[in-house]
Amino acid sequence: MIKLALYPGTFDPVTNGHIDIIQRASELFDKIVVTVARNLSKTPLFTTEERVFLLKESLKNFNNVTVDSFDGLVVDHAHSVNACAIIRGLRAVSDFEYEFQMALMNRKLAADISTVFLMPNEKYTYLNSSIVRNLSQFGSDVSEFVPNVVQDALIKKYAVK
Amino acid sequence: MIKLALYPGTFDPVTNGHIDIIQRASELFDKIVVTVARNLSKTPLFTTEERVFLLKESLKNFNNVTVDSFDGLVVDHAHSVNACAIIRGLRAVSDFEYEFQMALMNRKLAADISTVFLMPNEKYTYLNSSIVRNLSQFGSDVSEFVPNVVQDALIKKYAVK
Amino acid sequence: MIKLALYPGTFDPVTNGHIDIIQRASELFDKIVVTVARNLSKTPLFTTEERVFLLKESLKNFNNVTVDSFDGLVVDHAHSVNACAIIRGLRAVSDFEYEFQMALMNRKLAADISTVFLMPNEKYTYLNSSIVRNLSQFGSDVSEFVPNVVQDALIKKYAVK
Amino acid sequence: MIKLALYPGTFDPVTNGHIDIIQRASELFDKIVVTVARNLSKTPLFTTEERVFLLKESLKNFNNVTVDSFDGLVVDHAHSVNACAIIRGLRAVSDFEYEFQMALMNRKLAADISTVFLMPNEKYTYLNSSIVRNLSQFGSDVSEFVPNVVQDALIKKYAVK
Amino acid sequence: MIKLALYPGTFDPVTNGHIDIIQRASELFDKIVVTVARNLSKTPLFTTEERVFLLKESLKNFNNVTVDSFDGLVVDHAHSVNACAIIRGLRAVSDFEYEFQMALMNRKLAADISTVFLMPNEKYTYLNSSIVRNLSQFGSDVSEFVPNVVQDALIKKYAVK
Amino acid sequence: MIKLALYPGTFDPVTNGHIDIIQRASELFDKIVVTVARNLSKTPLFTTEERVFLLKESLKNFNNVTVDSFDGLVVDHAHSVNACAIIRGLRAVSDFEYEFQMALMNRKLAADISTVFLMPNEKYTYLNSSIVRNLSQFGSDVSEFVPNVVQDALIKKYAVK
Repeated sequence: MIKLALYPGTFDPVTNGHIDIIQRASELFDKIVVTVARNLSKTPLFTTEERVFLLKESLKNFNNVTVDSFDGLVVDHAHSVNACAIIRGLRAVSDFEYEFQMALMNRKLAADISTVFLMPNEKYTYLNSSIVRNLSQFGSDVSEFVPNVVQDALIKKYAVK
Repeated sequence: MIKLALYPGTFDPVTNGHIDIIQRASELFDKIVVTVARNLSKTPLFTTEERVFLLKESLKNFNNVTVDSFDGLVVDHAHSVNACAIIRGLRAVSDFEYEFQMALMNRKLAADISTVFLMPNEKYTYLNSSIVRNLSQFGSDVSEFVPNVVQDALIKKYAVK
Repeated sequence: MIKLALYPGTFDPVTNGHIDIIQRASELFDKIVVTVARNLSKTPLFTTEERVFLLKESLKNFNNVTVDSFDGLVVDHAHSVNACAIIRGLRAVSDFEYEFQMALMNRKLAADISTVFLMPNEKYTYLNSSIVRNLSQFGSDVSEFVPNVVQDALIKKYAVK
Repeated sequence: MIKLALYPGTFDPVTNGHIDIIQRASELFDKIVVTVARNLSKTPLFTTEERVFLLKESLKNFNNVTVDSFDGLVVDHAHSVNACAIIRGLRAVSDFEYEFQMALMNRKLAADISTVFLMPNEKYTYLNSSIVRNLSQFGSDVSEFVPNVVQDALIKKYAVK
Repeated sequence: MIKLALYPGTFDPVTNGHIDIIQRASELFDKIVVTVARNLSKTPLFTTEERVFLLKESLKNFNNVTVDSFDGLVVDHAHSVNACAIIRGLRAVSDFEYEFQMALMNRKLAADISTVFLMPNEKYTYLNSSIVRNLSQFGSDVSEFVPNVVQDALIKKYAVK
Repeated sequence: MIKLALYPGTFDPVTNGHIDIIQRASELFDKIVVTVARNLSKTPLFTTEERVFLLKESLKNFNNVTVDSFDGLVVDHAHSVNACAIIRGLRAVSDFEYEFQMALMNRKLAADISTVFLMPNEKYTYLNSSIVRNLSQFGSDVSEFVPNVVQDALIKKYAVK
């Protein structure tokens, strides 16, 4: 049986830290679905469609990775794509507690799906989408932290604002 | 290609929390090797051979799980069995930091092997081998926390002492 | 002298985790006052009156527990009801630091009142009001996590929205 | 019904931080039993008898506090003295996780007994028995951190060594 | 060469905890520039100009400390004033992770500037600007927590509201 | 007045993470004294003299850094060398709490000395002396983690054992 894992996130925008996790996951599972959470309390910088596009462009060299988006509960989407696992990246203790709580609840809601935590390279410990947006907003070069297509999109986005 | 994961630990003795992790892992990977670390700074209650025996007895219903033991570095043993992943259970923040540090070092030493963290059922949050030994030493019933074969071994061990 | 403890919170809405804490507290103190904080930076799902009602319905079998609401500082309300203790539930490290800081400040403001931390059953580790609201919003059954009266109120609330 | 709480610990030796917790607890419960754990993996500086003596001397002004010692499991001793609660002091995140795990296990073993966490004054955040022993060993004045009878005992103990 | 350190923050308003850090820093470095971050996601209680004024008044007895404000990235402002260090106060684990992440990113952006963490007196562990605003809003006396000029400004601010 | 900082530690043995901290500190202070703690509960791999030697060899290119060793309390040694600061490296939350407690106690014992926390490069997050000893014991190449002189000493030490 093919083993598929779902990697849900906000990806506003995708960073090299996310891609490092996807690289790892793509070696462990037969197929990875990277999925953008539509439903957000705060307004994202990029629309769902833009975030899906930036992920697709950034991941086009991975032949067992696809990208989509979802509304509602992660476990429902996991069931709909026949995932056996949900992938989450862990970088810090503060990540850990929130992730742990979500993973316990998801286990309660869907006993057949395991949450699998992967750890990015230590050089991405300091990296998250919010820091990248912040740097880009003040005109810093972020080419070391995100794919080129994302840097271009950030420059365009902040030029308009 | 077959996907094999190594689950290293002290297992002094194996608890239902460990078995919960192994159950999860056995659904995600084609084959699991559970491996007992021989080399310990403190003297274990059970010898390596006893710990391997108790694991084998406890896991005989899993048909894609085998048990062995190792000396030296985990990543060297992972290479010798052609593992693509090292499995670790995460229960608490204090686990997390130590595990994270080991995982980063192992990634440095063996870039081709990912550490995969799984989370036991929340009913095992409070459970570890040291608490089980402590309870058993004072004559408490530990049948809820360990397989029967382990409870028998604990009773025998503490009767001798 | 009668020993009264105040259990302040947002209770938006009350969950089985809160009720587990109240059950414990009601066995340790002569009287418990559960009190809803009126003053909130973010808009709650339920009004203060609704939250008080749901607590009263959920707690009607406890004969030493009453429910009210308050504005202002917790220690001022604690003084007004002659409490010797403030009850707080602790589930995770992230709870801990915030709670600790509040408890130190409250101790500074009212040296005669102790903050008492109680721990819910581990099966409620993953449970909080925000997760319950989130599940309910997407139509999940939350009967395992909240009293029936709360589930009904959630269904009605989200049907209106 | 009288409400009794058990405060177990190593107390090697008792510090002003412990006494601060006992002071608080003695105002919340009808009776407090402070109990010295006999059974220790590492050798304590003071014998069980010395630790009981130092506690008794330090606590003689509290008329609802008694001191004893115990072997075995804390919950068994709590039952034998009819305690409804076990008191623990919490100072830091690292305390928290260990204490949490013990409290969950104790709740499992004895559902009728609650663990109650109290917080010492923030001026005792940095204080523990091990730091006091360390300071005393190098001849520092520790009169600010422990009762006089304990300081005298420390001086005598290290003079002999 | 003169050694200058930058102490950036929101200071909404400055508390005695901040002043304790500045006191420490002023003894370690030749010159300290305390700098108010203009750019904030949430609306501050005091305007940038008010926050600068309150800092200047509170710090007028320190002869090697100046106050300014900045827009943009901290490291850019640090370069513009020739700082060799960025000062940050650390009180709790939750501070730590966020600060650590910022410090790693700032090290990446400006390898010539070190982040230096200082620890306030333990009596300021429970103190932050948000708690002070909260207390003041409900009419509590905050003279123990902030300089007089700040208490006056808080009273005036909340009287207007 | 010359500003001197003391950097105390076990250094068993010195790693590139320590040297990164010393590099940073040597740019912030006029003079750094790196000092080896003689007094240890567990037996170190290298003697105090060996640890001092390895530090001296590793640090000979820093012209404002000297190396010594001490018995007793860190603050007493800090006073004896006229230090205004004690340097400590911080890598993780678990470091943080212990360090914080020591820093608060040292501040209590010596109000004129500040503890200054510096953060190593993130590539040293996973690195500590114990991991280096462990790797070296099993014959791994540790040249990426320690100075050459230390690697040679480790090889010699484990060949003898």
